Amino acid sequence: MKVISGGVTTVQGFKAYGLRAGIKPNKTNKDMAMIYTETPAVCAGVFTTNKVKAGCVKWDSYIVENFETVNAVVVNTGVANAATGQQGYDNAKRMSEYTAEVLGLEKAEQVLAASTGVIGKQLPMDIIEKGIRELAPVLSDTEEAGNLAAEAILTTDTHSKQYAAQFEINGKTVAIGGMCKGSGMIHPNMGTMLGFICTDIAIEKSLLVEALKNDIKDTFNMISVDGDTSTNDSVFVLANGLAGNTKITEKNADYEKFCKALNEVNKYLAQRIAEDGEGATKLFEVIVENAPTKEDAIVLSKSVITSSLTKAAIFGRDANCGRILCAMGYSGAEFNPDTVDVFVESENGKILLVENGIGLEFDEEYALKVLSADKITAKIDTKCGTATATAWGCDLTHEYVSINADYRS
Amino acid sequence: MKVISGGVTTVQGFKAYGLRAGIKPNKTNKDMAMIYTETPAVCAGVFTTNKVKAGCVKWDSYIVENFETVNAVVVNTGVANAATGQQGYDNAKRMSEYTAEVLGLEKAEQVLAASTGVIGKQLPMDIIEKGIRELAPVLSDTEEAGNLAAEAILTTDTHSKQYAAQFEINGKTVAIGGMCKGSGMIHPNMGTMLGFICTDIAIEKSLLVEALKNDIKDTFNMISVDGDTSTNDSVFVLANGLAGNTKITEKNADYEKFCKALNEVNKYLAQRIAEDGEGATKLFEVIVENAPTKEDAIVLSKSVITSSLTKAAIFGRDANCGRILCAMGYSGAEFNPDTVDVFVESENGKILLVENGIGLEFDEEYALKVLSADKITAKIDTKCGTATATAWGCDLTHEYVSINADYRS
Repeated sequence: MKVISGGVTTVQGFKAYGLRAGIKPNKTNKDMAMIYTETPAVCAGVFTTNKVKAGCVKWDSYIVENFETVNAVVVNTGVANAATGQQGYDNAKRMSEYTAEVLGLEKAEQVLAASTGVIGKQLPMDIIEKGIRELAPVLSDTEEAGNLAAEAILTTDTHSKQYAAQFEINGKTVAIGGMCKGSGMIHPNMGTMLGFICTDIAIEKSLLVEALKNDIKDTFNMISVDGDTSTNDSVFVLANGLAGNTKITEKNADYEKFCKALNEVNKYLAQRIAEDGEGATKLFEVIVENAPTKEDAIVLSKSVITSSLTKAAIFGRDANCGRILCAMGYSGAEFNPDTVDVFVESENGKILLVENGIGLEFDEEYALKVLSADKITAKIDTKCGTATATAWGCDLTHEYVSINADYRS
Repeated sequence: MKVISGGVTTVQGFKAYGLRAGIKPNKTNKDMAMIYTETPAVCAGVFTTNKVKAGCVKWDSYIVENFETVNAVVVNTGVANAATGQQGYDNAKRMSEYTAEVLGLEKAEQVLAASTGVIGKQLPMDIIEKGIRELAPVLSDTEEAGNLAAEAILTTDTHSKQYAAQFEINGKTVAIGGMCKGSGMIHPNMGTMLGFICTDIAIEKSLLVEALKNDIKDTFNMISVDGDTSTNDSVFVLANGLAGNTKITEKNADYEKFCKALNEVNKYLAQRIAEDGEGATKLFEVIVENAPTKEDAIVLSKSVITSSLTKAAIFGRDANCGRILCAMGYSGAEFNPDTVDVFVESENGKILLVENGIGLEFDEEYALKVLSADKITAKIDTKCGTATATAWGCDLTHEYVSINADYRS
């Protein structure tokens, strides 16, 4: 698999664009994006498990469950269209309907609509419609157009997040490219996670759906910025089949190859969200090894990356192993507290903090050096099984508080 | 019921004291306390549900489960005696044993030992023993002695927390007085919650245990500072029977009276912990009304007080109703998102933010006024049942991050 530059527009047949329609108060911010493929793309989507679901999430779930293919995605930032009742659902549908109209598509159900931003406000439909009118004629397959789309979907993110790669399936080059955004209300809340993956692979819808559902367990569902699961989280994969490979209709070696590529793209994008969490200065990776079950490993690793106290300690470069053990202990997962080893490592070195559940004396200066890197990994060996999981989060900083004490203004 | 000044020493037969033994690095901080009653007190205790339990928690659980009465409690701060293995358990036991010896008691099991502070370090037993030798001769039943004990159990708390009251049972005046500490790792974590309630009521142990277990569901278990459940959380009630009331041996009106008094003390103390959470500037109360079940009401209210995004919004005086709805939605509790009303109120006024699940337009200036008070209440009417719960938390501030980025130094 070869990593290539760009994102969604590197995949043949996919066009995109991003621009400022005028939803966000800050006049320099782009706030609408569109993705389009003339060739219909089979589509898989996974959505927030939050009981309070945005209007667009309800609308898109309906599309993904009932229709085989889509041709476009329209996205706005600034207003999340959540806690907006029936009007919210109607507005999401209208976004799709109007986009279909402008793009010359037959029906609203050919267009997915995604929103992110403030909860509890109705979408400014006049501005949205203006944005749709402006986007349609400038859609382009250039890398620059993809970059503009990737910028336009951001909220409190500090930079755009894209990834693209190519691999071969029966002699044909298949491309997969994605873009996503974080950066608060991430436990896959207000910032919202949105991910859009495009590929030209030929694959049956049911298999695409299964591949995505399996993959997010190890990728997007393994990140947390603040423990708050958004009302809008959505990840979509669109596959338009233009690569010309023999269509994947069973779980064969080609399917495995695609799953591996999808995993690489999603894992990369998920880590970029964690790293660019609101106010974050560090990517915090937690690897749990030798846990009784996969579920235990997942719960343990997520509990540690979600702990405010641990996150603040990572910000402070403080080797506070007690907080890691504490977060494991209240997670509800099965493990033996008396066999746990905890290492902390980075590009600057590695240090053993806890052995068989007991805190060790360590060289504070060396620990500070290890913890001064931009990416910190806590490796936790529970020594009571064979299951492993990796979760990604970030540190808790003063800037996080500043961003969230005054998000709406 | 009449509120009186003081804490544990206002109850007849109970002596206490607090002083600096030298465990904490800061030379002006007290770090050891002792409570003593010559008349043996029946004792109830509730402990952390964290799988990683401090040595003292294991030791005290053993005492509470196997012995009818105790005569003393010895407490140290600075080191939590958690993640310390067998040596940690032995040290907790040694604290009790040495205290018994110095106080002239027969056996170690007559003394409860509690610790709070840094996890992963062994107790400095030479300093602890010195502290025990210094405390025993100066124990006193004065209010001042109680104040010193209440100060000595603090960690990152900004002030001591005590409450005392009197009520009548069959013509006899019964006193109940308590002290506690927060202020981080509170979901009932490093700060640790410790609560000590003394009363002179005559009551059977089994009923005291039941009263405490029931009561904490609505009091100490309903607070959260950071979502981190400590390795050391413990609440004890000691009842020495000196009030002279007819001993309570069944769930009669006297029992109910005692439960009510216990609830008042515990509720008051729990709120003080939430209000004095690390870095907190506001007490944040969340009342959920008309939920399907009590459990749903508890989960919903705790999810809202625990949400980092909601807590940061409370700090920023930002009426960000979306975060409240979002935290309810991912809590896992049963409710109908489309019937929820959310009010925010304080001594400065009351404002409706969400009606039937839909965010309302509101007067931003008035909302800012409401949110500028020191105590903010969110009242959430889910309109889908009859159950109610109240939870207490605090805002998330820059100071919280500062405290926890560098706790150990």
